[in-house]
Amino acid sequence: MDFTNTLGLVAGTLTTIAFLPQMFQTWKTKSARDVSFVMLITFMCGLLLWLIYGIILGALPIIMANGITLFFNFIILWLKIKYR
Amino acid sequence: MDFTNTLGLVAGTLTTIAFLPQMFQTWKTKSARDVSFVMLITFMCGLLLWLIYGIILGALPIIMANGITLFFNFIILWLKIKYR
Repeated sequence: MDFTNTLGLVAGTLTTIAFLPQMFQTWKTKSARDVSFVMLITFMCGLLLWLIYGIILGALPIIMANGITLFFNFIILWLKIKYR
Repeated sequence: MDFTNTLGLVAGTLTTIAFLPQMFQTWKTKSARDVSFVMLITFMCGLLLWLIYGIILGALPIIMANGITLFFNFIILWLKIKYR
């Protein structure tokens, strides 16, 4: 794998796993008041469209990165609603 | 522009502008305690790598989407540090 592809892979991994610490912090503190509801909904709509885009193109990295990020943000949204 | 490209463009616009309401909420409430610091740093590192990836490929949509998202998240991080 060349440098550019490796860079893209690392970039995608970072922007995906970034939401894990948010998920754990919300779960631990039982508070997500400061996390914008409109941000979560808008971001998740965008991720869903990226997922469909990836499925149409048959691009596994786009499907994986956006599918997992969507799942993490769904959990964050669920925790925010649960602990409001 | 075909359906797939339009879909990608709308997806990129949504995942970018999603951080505007977070920015405004943090600015208005003067609190970002519930926004994970590790999430912001990891996400911004990922966005920076996406930006470099876009520059190497000469892909303007990747440069624009990630550049603007990085800028918004930089403001959110700055507000979080300012209001901690």
